[in-house]
Amino acid sequence: MIKVGIVGGSGFTGVELLRLLCHHPQAELSVITSRSEAGQPVSSVFPSLAGRVDVAFSDVDVRALATCDVVFFATPNGVAMQQVPTLLDAGARVIDLAADFRLRDPAVWERWYGMPHACPQFLEEAVYGLPEINRDRIASARLIANPGCYPTAVTLGFLPLVEAGLVDPADLVADCKSGVSGAGRHVRADLAFCEVNENFRAYNVFAHRHQPEITQTLNGMGAGGVDLTFVPHLVPMNRGIHVTLYSRLTQAADLQAVYEARYRNEPFVRVLPAGGHPQTGAVRAGNDCVMAVHGEGRRVVVLSVIDNLVKGAAGQAIQNMNLMFGLDETCGLRQPALAP
Amino acid sequence: MIKVGIVGGSGFTGVELLRLLCHHPQAELSVITSRSEAGQPVSSVFPSLAGRVDVAFSDVDVRALATCDVVFFATPNGVAMQQVPTLLDAGARVIDLAADFRLRDPAVWERWYGMPHACPQFLEEAVYGLPEINRDRIASARLIANPGCYPTAVTLGFLPLVEAGLVDPADLVADCKSGVSGAGRHVRADLAFCEVNENFRAYNVFAHRHQPEITQTLNGMGAGGVDLTFVPHLVPMNRGIHVTLYSRLTQAADLQAVYEARYRNEPFVRVLPAGGHPQTGAVRAGNDCVMAVHGEGRRVVVLSVIDNLVKGAAGQAIQNMNLMFGLDETCGLRQPALAP
Amino acid sequence: MIKVGIVGGSGFTGVELLRLLCHHPQAELSVITSRSEAGQPVSSVFPSLAGRVDVAFSDVDVRALATCDVVFFATPNGVAMQQVPTLLDAGARVIDLAADFRLRDPAVWERWYGMPHACPQFLEEAVYGLPEINRDRIASARLIANPGCYPTAVTLGFLPLVEAGLVDPADLVADCKSGVSGAGRHVRADLAFCEVNENFRAYNVFAHRHQPEITQTLNGMGAGGVDLTFVPHLVPMNRGIHVTLYSRLTQAADLQAVYEARYRNEPFVRVLPAGGHPQTGAVRAGNDCVMAVHGEGRRVVVLSVIDNLVKGAAGQAIQNMNLMFGLDETCGLRQPALAP
Amino acid sequence: MIKVGIVGGSGFTGVELLRLLCHHPQAELSVITSRSEAGQPVSSVFPSLAGRVDVAFSDVDVRALATCDVVFFATPNGVAMQQVPTLLDAGARVIDLAADFRLRDPAVWERWYGMPHACPQFLEEAVYGLPEINRDRIASARLIANPGCYPTAVTLGFLPLVEAGLVDPADLVADCKSGVSGAGRHVRADLAFCEVNENFRAYNVFAHRHQPEITQTLNGMGAGGVDLTFVPHLVPMNRGIHVTLYSRLTQAADLQAVYEARYRNEPFVRVLPAGGHPQTGAVRAGNDCVMAVHGEGRRVVVLSVIDNLVKGAAGQAIQNMNLMFGLDETCGLRQPALAP
Repeated sequence: MIKVGIVGGSGFTGVELLRLLCHHPQAELSVITSRSEAGQPVSSVFPSLAGRVDVAFSDVDVRALATCDVVFFATPNGVAMQQVPTLLDAGARVIDLAADFRLRDPAVWERWYGMPHACPQFLEEAVYGLPEINRDRIASARLIANPGCYPTAVTLGFLPLVEAGLVDPADLVADCKSGVSGAGRHVRADLAFCEVNENFRAYNVFAHRHQPEITQTLNGMGAGGVDLTFVPHLVPMNRGIHVTLYSRLTQAADLQAVYEARYRNEPFVRVLPAGGHPQTGAVRAGNDCVMAVHGEGRRVVVLSVIDNLVKGAAGQAIQNMNLMFGLDETCGLRQPALAP
Repeated sequence: MIKVGIVGGSGFTGVELLRLLCHHPQAELSVITSRSEAGQPVSSVFPSLAGRVDVAFSDVDVRALATCDVVFFATPNGVAMQQVPTLLDAGARVIDLAADFRLRDPAVWERWYGMPHACPQFLEEAVYGLPEINRDRIASARLIANPGCYPTAVTLGFLPLVEAGLVDPADLVADCKSGVSGAGRHVRADLAFCEVNENFRAYNVFAHRHQPEITQTLNGMGAGGVDLTFVPHLVPMNRGIHVTLYSRLTQAADLQAVYEARYRNEPFVRVLPAGGHPQTGAVRAGNDCVMAVHGEGRRVVVLSVIDNLVKGAAGQAIQNMNLMFGLDETCGLRQPALAP
Repeated sequence: MIKVGIVGGSGFTGVELLRLLCHHPQAELSVITSRSEAGQPVSSVFPSLAGRVDVAFSDVDVRALATCDVVFFATPNGVAMQQVPTLLDAGARVIDLAADFRLRDPAVWERWYGMPHACPQFLEEAVYGLPEINRDRIASARLIANPGCYPTAVTLGFLPLVEAGLVDPADLVADCKSGVSGAGRHVRADLAFCEVNENFRAYNVFAHRHQPEITQTLNGMGAGGVDLTFVPHLVPMNRGIHVTLYSRLTQAADLQAVYEARYRNEPFVRVLPAGGHPQTGAVRAGNDCVMAVHGEGRRVVVLSVIDNLVKGAAGQAIQNMNLMFGLDETCGLRQPALAP
Repeated sequence: MIKVGIVGGSGFTGVELLRLLCHHPQAELSVITSRSEAGQPVSSVFPSLAGRVDVAFSDVDVRALATCDVVFFATPNGVAMQQVPTLLDAGARVIDLAADFRLRDPAVWERWYGMPHACPQFLEEAVYGLPEINRDRIASARLIANPGCYPTAVTLGFLPLVEAGLVDPADLVADCKSGVSGAGRHVRADLAFCEVNENFRAYNVFAHRHQPEITQTLNGMGAGGVDLTFVPHLVPMNRGIHVTLYSRLTQAADLQAVYEARYRNEPFVRVLPAGGHPQTGAVRAGNDCVMAVHGEGRRVVVLSVIDNLVKGAAGQAIQNMNLMFGLDETCGLRQPALAP
């Protein structure tokens, strides 16, 4: 059994890790910490776990964490980087669900995240945990930067086009829509029910931290020169991300064939038949990314959906853990989506 | 492995059975029928099951069903009773998720369901599939009448009071609220998104078929004389039932102790600490019934929640199957609720 | 033109007063105060009013308020009572949308609201602003206690039965469901979108301040002896209250006729034909209360709906203002509900 | 008083016309027809209008309609074109809220709408009813083609850029999101609550009829050469359209100044300060279009919101009526939006 530690388990990605680990036959929760909820039973914070997860949050204790085989950080940005060197030294492996290790260039990271990086020397070693592009490197990694929710859906959507050099990388648009859990479990006026319900809006136009993350990955997969316009929106629903991607072909291509070939062997990516429209409701609570590609003339439109808390966070983190420990990649992640 | 057949699998209880059976280590789907969807892959009707359930709906074929160990009917009322005699004869066991075998008295059944009963001789044999009251009889039953969704939440909520004879059975009120999936997967004007969303209403006051079902069960558990006022309401959400139950004590009692004692050993019923308020969101997609009891003077208020598609339908049906086949009652049903 | 002041205009009842006053041909906004938003344009807090309400919030200034003909308090409980004596002295009339003047007995008020009352000498003078029972007294009042949202729907629903002495006043149950705006415009964890959406729960069983308010009114309308069980619930929608009322007849009665007779001349109460089920969506944004009465044997069930922010708060306050200033009671309140 | 006729009043645009006409001091409803609801009181179909609109639907009677000053068609596509010649002959003026007269070229119309046009000779005369571009022509028109909901939001959003020739017209993308009422009041499986709620999806990629409509208008306002990629999506909410528009500058420009100048005198278009994000909830039930423009390098992103049933349908139709009859353009349309 893999001994699992979770740091900062009182947010939405924390509860989702706990939920998914209940399904996992090869991993057991060893320690879960939460500064704000220390001493509280997990089920008093998350009644959905009552009778299933019978442990209490503890205060952060690096020695206890260091005895784990793997430690997940489900913390705000800037926390994992404080503790990663110690944990890696102690022999634990780390999967950070926040953004501390997602950008390679410390200067870029510091500009977008507004703080100095505590251990820039690990940025190079950290492996970006998107199995569809880094499966082998993930298997041997000590430190995983688990991708952001939008970047997972957007990168997987653009990937076949960019890898094959079929589109102009300087003209990419990602129009992204997320359920409200993507904003985290914060008590904020703009996340109150009456503000969000029966409402739709964009936010952070030209100013979202996932833009440099996606750009970095796509630049690494193709010929570079990526210029991505990224606009996120808030949808009045709990879960789900739908991204609508726009690009322009630089040469003729059988788009459907390109996508099907690229993802034929991926256990968690499905390409719909030509003309399809994926929906977030069909991946709710599951680890799948479902996509469809549409072309007309030079214009390509890709539709890609995930559950932001599963393939966009906790599920992908467990997929990475499976790879790191030599398990079947789908272990504990095969449960179907919830409908309705 | 238990060979499972499902009749009428294209509704919400059908897809929920399929979803839950994916988690079950001892059961395998043998045949699934749907008159309206015969020939279609299950995943084309329910994209949430794509990659998980790779079978097609077949037309109804009693011989194929008769080879199953157990056949679930997830059909409209009046269908199961046409086929049950043949299937039982052939040695299959049957769990009817509809109402054909829920009422003992054929005359009462015919009055509430508006049609003649096709096999009234089986009404006596059929076991009402509420494990919390009929566990032993379920284990040896050939034919299970799986309880309705409201009756599950209401009966479990009133049960400790009625069994112990603590309240006046002639003064019971069940004010019930259900998510929209409780109405089934029908294409109806009153179930359109714009009719239901941002709206709340009661329906079928004094005229809902679950009233005689609950009354029959409670009469059987206590001293009789039940007079239940039952009012259902539609809540703008997909899943979940919350019932608020009102009764009057005929003697003093430690209500919290009564409830805790009654359900101490039940794997799927939890009683909240005194003063609690259960919420449907904490049982979403799980098989739990969570309740709280409040008293002031002679007045008792019980709050009880379930997921109408799980403990209120498909989950309870699988719980019954487990009992019928000598498995651990919780087999395949331990996954935690989904939050948010 | 009636000169209107609003104190504490940055909550949901404040914005609703502003919205409704835009429709009112005989009233003009003179001053609007908000401690937290002083100096901000109203439209920066409420973008829905941009281009319609071009004033800024000011800090509280009793002298400015004293020049108004009428001052609405849309403040938390405990604020109005600090300023009412001064304003009445200055000749302004006051309509308090909070609870400071709703209970006659200072001791009862202090027990339920947990603070000493600042001007108990006004409790007797204050008129409970439910036009359907106090129309004449409202017309000549200086100080109106505008009813709570639940009390409006519940009191109007029980009124015909209690006034006529048809039911046992010691056996009244009000099972109440409210949209989330009823909880106010607070930044609270339990009001976050992901907590409320796809969720349903009761709260404050046996402990809601609207219970004594309703009891007081019903005791005043009938023979006394009211014992009311009141349970509120939160519905995942923005607006609307639906109450389901249970009582028992003490004598035979033509319930439909009783209700129709009682409300025949009420401009904002409509009784549905026998067998009806009112819905909150049909009164959204309007000042109507719609109800239906159902009877079976001795049991009576009344269904009653309002928009909690209109007939349950700001609309009723304007209806009271109309009465106080000799206008047509419906002035500015005739706009139809919004559907869908 | 303007005598108003409405044909096909039983859909969402029909009820919205009725609601808005209740606010209009210069228009009175003379006749309302509905083939499916003939003989029914309007309030039995739309309980939100009970007590406000006390007429019944009549069967279609061209003679009765011909006595009206103006006839609104709130019908499916293909109905208005059957009756328009007769009504115009009789001296009535016509505002078609459907698409029969939106495209100038009969061949294009017939290709997109899949039927022969019944009166192509009127396509040239019909005026496209977007006041912000056709105010003068609308004033003298006999026949108005009221714009589609998406085209209103998209065209107003792109207009300042295209008119000024600032962007490449061959590289326009409109990513559009609509509430469910935009799909009409149909009883369809894909519009059922449980299908839409907690779900998000695109539909009709490269195949939506609003694409040629927008293209035609923008070609008419600029130098031509428009190539628009248009992708609509369904949002789980009742009302509201949010469009996110992408284009590329061909020259430097002060975008904020361009937008503010273009719409300075428009009563129903508001440009947010630089950096703003409009939200659909702030225009709910109102006739405003609110927008913001963002630029970075050559990339321009415009955000534009309307209520699809008001500025996107019935409100704009009444705005056109006001212009046609010489009234203040805002008459009956000044009520503020509804929040929350």
